[in-house]
Amino acid sequence: MTIRLYEYPPSGNCYKVRLLLAHLGIPYERQSFDIARGETRTPEFRRRFPLGRLPVLELEDGVQLAESNAILCYFAEGTDYLPDDRLARARVLQWMFWEQYSHEPYVAVVRAWIAYFGIPAGKEAELAERTARGYAALDAMEAHLGSADWFGAPRYSIADIALHAYTHVAPEGRFDLSRYTAIGRWIERVRAQPGHVAIDA
Amino acid sequence: MTIRLYEYPPSGNCYKVRLLLAHLGIPYERQSFDIARGETRTPEFRRRFPLGRLPVLELEDGVQLAESNAILCYFAEGTDYLPDDRLARARVLQWMFWEQYSHEPYVAVVRAWIAYFGIPAGKEAELAERTARGYAALDAMEAHLGSADWFGAPRYSIADIALHAYTHVAPEGRFDLSRYTAIGRWIERVRAQPGHVAIDA
Repeated sequence: MTIRLYEYPPSGNCYKVRLLLAHLGIPYERQSFDIARGETRTPEFRRRFPLGRLPVLELEDGVQLAESNAILCYFAEGTDYLPDDRLARARVLQWMFWEQYSHEPYVAVVRAWIAYFGIPAGKEAELAERTARGYAALDAMEAHLGSADWFGAPRYSIADIALHAYTHVAPEGRFDLSRYTAIGRWIERVRAQPGHVAIDA
Repeated sequence: MTIRLYEYPPSGNCYKVRLLLAHLGIPYERQSFDIARGETRTPEFRRRFPLGRLPVLELEDGVQLAESNAILCYFAEGTDYLPDDRLARARVLQWMFWEQYSHEPYVAVVRAWIAYFGIPAGKEAELAERTARGYAALDAMEAHLGSADWFGAPRYSIADIALHAYTHVAPEGRFDLSRYTAIGRWIERVRAQPGHVAIDA
């Protein structure tokens, strides 16, 4: 039995896992659920996946792991994608927690509403607020990249994989990336990493 | 020079760090900023702390680390509060990422609005939605505790520290914990850990 990724293919959170597994050359099966068609909101889904969200990674022995960034840590452990040094590790995690709290709820949710699910009724003001916070997250990334090539570690790491996932598709949420020149160069560096795959690969 | 915690004392995110440092017996200085009085929204604050949020931990050499859960990982590394086993580590991180994405924005934000900052103008509907999602997070915790004593590891870990921080003060956000009997027993187990300190200690 091989490992299996339960996913919604357009999700950046799911793409993070596929990108790291591609870098590492780890084979896996994929099983898709269509969030737009409500396939993750059924009692059956909730029974199989108690935390209710994708991706979920199922290991060879059937053990499940949830939360995209925790899955990245699991596979990156002992590889070049997660440093051993205690401070460098904590810095990688700092950016990964920041991504989930201060970036994803804005950059990813705005993209999801605009490009995939539609803007929920009555959420127009919230869309504007989330867009502003998304730009604040992009500003923080641009500022960081003014003095560093990568997030978290002296080299490409799972912090970059986590942040790249939704940043590079932010234009699908009508974010204008043209003024973020440091982010643009960083995205090119990410794409040049050996084994890189695109989100729709 | 000793390490220093920059914090807002009522914040559960800041309390997490104080609780782990108390368990570990690590001395530190504290410096408070009053979020309610806008002390974290000044240009000066943003210059010192580019990610703009508290807590920030400053190490002996002046290096700063942000994001409460990343700070927990830094100090827990090599201790009983973070397991060495790869799957157990990932499970601890799973619950810590879940805490920041699916628990804190609801349980903590509702508490902050109700007990500390006031409900922002026009956010009444959002308060109701965040309250409902907070209860969904508490439901997921209660379900998990039906078959486990702890989150993430076979013993008390930083996953429990992270989740305890805002769960035990959820009633300040008018969450009714009386029906969550497994959470109630887990909070008692957390309080019984050697070196435990209260949020207002």
